[in-house]
Amino acid sequence: MANVYDKAQELKQAIAESDDFKELKSLHLQIDEDEIAKKMLNNFRQLQLDLQRKQMQGEQISEEEVQKAQQQFELVQQHELISKLMEAEQRLSVTIGDVNKVITEPLEEIYGNPDAQ
Amino acid sequence: MANVYDKAQELKQAIAESDDFKELKSLHLQIDEDEIAKKMLNNFRQLQLDLQRKQMQGEQISEEEVQKAQQQFELVQQHELISKLMEAEQRLSVTIGDVNKVITEPLEEIYGNPDAQ
Ligand SMILES: [Ca+2]
Ligand SMILES: [Ca+2]
Repeated sequence: MANVYDKAQELKQAIAESDDFKELKSLHLQIDEDEIAKKMLNNFRQLQLDLQRKQMQGEQISEEEVQKAQQQFELVQQHELISKLMEAEQRLSVTIGDVNKVITEPLEEIYGNPDAQ
Repeated sequence: MANVYDKAQELKQAIAESDDFKELKSLHLQIDEDEIAKKMLNNFRQLQLDLQRKQMQGEQISEEEVQKAQQQFELVQQHELISKLMEAEQRLSVTIGDVNKVITEPLEEIYGNPDAQ
């Protein structure tokens, strides 16, 4: 599997050198040096994690909690650095998803495409 | 992201040309042409899917069902083609897992390694 690992390393390098990744890294560093932005983002991430944990454990999520999350989302979106960071994260997430589709195509040839079922 | 997609295509090609993948594909074709092996494997897969579905839906799995699955597993393992297929699937699954670790390393640089937490 030597060539597979070589090609995985090359792909990793291409991701690390992509504009989206470089922008994400730069925004992450800028936010890390901005106490207010950092706190806003951390609070928002924590709220998201709490809701995800509740959802995964099958706990009820109140309308109040949903509203609070929505408000927090609108608030952090108004911060330019955070808003740009979330956009860059979204783009990179789409790219990684596309990459995963591409590299698992050989398996579809054997097992069929689960999305098509 | 042109280079990312080029590199993903090259990685896909390397996977498709790897010995493990070629062996998996060949075993899959051989089993598909062997009515008994095909039926044994399909029955086993269906049993696995049923148990997974139950587990995901939080349904109770009886000791009888666990024993049946274990017996079916031991049975299919005795069929050389199926046993080889499962080994090849396992190796390829490890490789794909390793590949995913490699290509998400750039993100660890930003977000930290979730496995290390
Ligand atoms: Ca970056
Ligand atoms: Ca194969």
